[in-house]
Amino acid sequence: MTIAQDVRADDVDAIVRRIGEAAREAGDAVASASTQQRNRALRAAAAEIRRRAPDILTANAEDVADAKARGTKGAFIDRLVLTADRIEAMAAGLEDIARLPDPLGQVMAEWDRPNGLRIARVRVPLGVIGIIYESRPNVTADAAGLCLKAGNAAVLRGGSESFRSSGAIADCLTAGLVAADLPAAAVQRLPTRDRAAVGAMLRLSDCIDVIVPRGGRSLIERVAAESRIPVLKHLDGNCHVYLHSAADPQKAVSIAVNSKMRRTGICGAAETLLVDAAAAPGLLPPVLGALADAGCEVRGDAATQALDRRILPATEADWGTEYLDAVIAVRQVEGLDEAVAHIGRYGSHHTESIVTEDDAAAEAFLARVDSGIVLHNASTQFADGGEFGMGAEIGISTGKLHARGPVGAEQLTSYKYVVRGNGQVRP
Amino acid sequence: MTIAQDVRADDVDAIVRRIGEAAREAGDAVASASTQQRNRALRAAAAEIRRRAPDILTANAEDVADAKARGTKGAFIDRLVLTADRIEAMAAGLEDIARLPDPLGQVMAEWDRPNGLRIARVRVPLGVIGIIYESRPNVTADAAGLCLKAGNAAVLRGGSESFRSSGAIADCLTAGLVAADLPAAAVQRLPTRDRAAVGAMLRLSDCIDVIVPRGGRSLIERVAAESRIPVLKHLDGNCHVYLHSAADPQKAVSIAVNSKMRRTGICGAAETLLVDAAAAPGLLPPVLGALADAGCEVRGDAATQALDRRILPATEADWGTEYLDAVIAVRQVEGLDEAVAHIGRYGSHHTESIVTEDDAAAEAFLARVDSGIVLHNASTQFADGGEFGMGAEIGISTGKLHARGPVGAEQLTSYKYVVRGNGQVRP
Repeated sequence: MTIAQDVRADDVDAIVRRIGEAAREAGDAVASASTQQRNRALRAAAAEIRRRAPDILTANAEDVADAKARGTKGAFIDRLVLTADRIEAMAAGLEDIARLPDPLGQVMAEWDRPNGLRIARVRVPLGVIGIIYESRPNVTADAAGLCLKAGNAAVLRGGSESFRSSGAIADCLTAGLVAADLPAAAVQRLPTRDRAAVGAMLRLSDCIDVIVPRGGRSLIERVAAESRIPVLKHLDGNCHVYLHSAADPQKAVSIAVNSKMRRTGICGAAETLLVDAAAAPGLLPPVLGALADAGCEVRGDAATQALDRRILPATEADWGTEYLDAVIAVRQVEGLDEAVAHIGRYGSHHTESIVTEDDAAAEAFLARVDSGIVLHNASTQFADGGEFGMGAEIGISTGKLHARGPVGAEQLTSYKYVVRGNGQVRP
Repeated sequence: MTIAQDVRADDVDAIVRRIGEAAREAGDAVASASTQQRNRALRAAAAEIRRRAPDILTANAEDVADAKARGTKGAFIDRLVLTADRIEAMAAGLEDIARLPDPLGQVMAEWDRPNGLRIARVRVPLGVIGIIYESRPNVTADAAGLCLKAGNAAVLRGGSESFRSSGAIADCLTAGLVAADLPAAAVQRLPTRDRAAVGAMLRLSDCIDVIVPRGGRSLIERVAAESRIPVLKHLDGNCHVYLHSAADPQKAVSIAVNSKMRRTGICGAAETLLVDAAAAPGLLPPVLGALADAGCEVRGDAATQALDRRILPATEADWGTEYLDAVIAVRQVEGLDEAVAHIGRYGSHHTESIVTEDDAAAEAFLARVDSGIVLHNASTQFADGGEFGMGAEIGISTGKLHARGPVGAEQLTSYKYVVRGNGQVRP
């Protein structure tokens, strides 16, 4: 990506504005490109990622060395490191996105008016999407790929620690666009590590239509506070599993353990287990045993501690905590009303599951819990665009506007009304 | 509406917070109320408006007298004044909203996964909607009615000039809620004229889910700049009619005149007429004559002035102006590409119409113009929720996120994913 010669290299506002303006113009081109052309760009980008894998690994090794030299720790380094497998997964992911149905041009609804007007609501791109993310460099490919699929231009701002890695990946996307005769500026990465660039991006409301932050709470909160552009929020996943009194004991064990322990670091991981008090003496011990066997620390309320002395006490703070670790809080409740109230008070509107053989209780839970995803007799770890059949996702929205739950290509679109007449005027 | 005794009457932040918290709680109740119960509240509110019409007129007369005493002018007073007809229209409007299909619970999409999970995307309320509007007191009934239909609570802040009128109308909505056994706090009006209340409302992001401003550009811009809550924007309607070279001459006249002159003060009124230069000598004179006969001032580019010496010159500023008056700007263009480019540069993404008998040209225009509403051979004045068959609208969104074009009850909803399993865990 080259910045015009008349912009000084240290003038971050001007650099970001140039990128935004180029994105706006490129967005018009990808919006009107055919399905085939956009998919060709995605497949060409995948091929470039495979071809340039050695360059990407070299760039990544430099990023990792720098991070280690600064004393950065384990989980962070793990997110930053690319391997041959991770690079292949990026390429395959872009090919998966190319195979998805094209959301653009879909007629979402169509009807006739008594005066003969025919009205259609048709899916169109959002325009320019700004993505601000942290250390995982592979977000570069996933996010840009989804934006392009939906006919949008993308402006990417990765974490400064993954600056070289993200740049090497973004170059592959650019090459894919060029190979498909689309403007390179449809995917741009901010060419500076300067943190001021994030602020400049968040003020660019005439060039960027929506901001998608991906990262920890502090990033999301900074973006939400500073942005003059609408934000698709992806906040905490403080997810709950509720074992209703009519739960099947085996499902209770497998769903609780999988929801918590399959992967503890993802937003769909369960953090609190609620159990009907009347059924707890029967239901809970095998669940607690299985969690302990899986290496999970359990923090319980007094009633739960009474079942097993090794359980640590849960405090008020535990109900609101997203551990993202092998820790679970357990609370006994007096039935469905109390479970729903607990989730409403402490939850983050992300994903909650009820385990029960009582269909009426399940339907009440599914209707009353106000979360993006509500499940009956299934693990909260299904909170994932791929598992939903969306092919890929840019995140899980915990906001209520525009998109809720997994945000895939379809959720990165808007619509317009197309009205066909034969001379109608309004009386 | 009563405020708790422990809140000081001049503590605007505390007053607004109490209202927000009550709205959040009441929102849960209307969200889970049945279709019949919400419709009963709407019909009871309509009956109260008819019953209390004399009180509403008295309150309104006081508002109007105050406004006149402050030297307020014609159009403003016209928007403020209520008449028996306008009051009846409010009541009838609420009954219309009651007759609309219930958007809640609609299954927007449903599919099965290979692992047996059944996933449904189901329409749910947004939650609490804050509406900030200017002088028209009847917005109180329309906006609250649409919010309630969609299972939302409403927090209303009307213009200070219509304070008494809006209060009298809001009381009818409250009475309707109570008659249907729903919490009165599901429709609340801020009980203060203090402008600081608007700022307090815009900061209440934990209680209010979305802000809908209705009013002039300065209101919308203030709200967009200050709000910590997502805003559904309803900006200018700088709408265009494009007379393509293959336009039917009679449709050209009737659509241009109706788009401009039926009502000049609404956002769907056309402000600029674009004409293919090659066809202008034949097409344009009858259009200009009909506009002049209707009392419209025409400002044209040089080529248009050459057709009729009485035409005033249009300047660059005219292309970007929303006159909301009997004035139109006319520009000749070299074909569809230039028309689309002009609209992209000067338009406000609201509503644009092409007049042509050439279907390929029409489809190109409908696809390429990036506006919420695009029409072929029909008047721009159809930009209206009622004309679209939505029953009523809270405004026309010019933003691309969440809702675009007319915002009716369906657009005041969100969705959630309901996932039904039989014990599935994620591998």
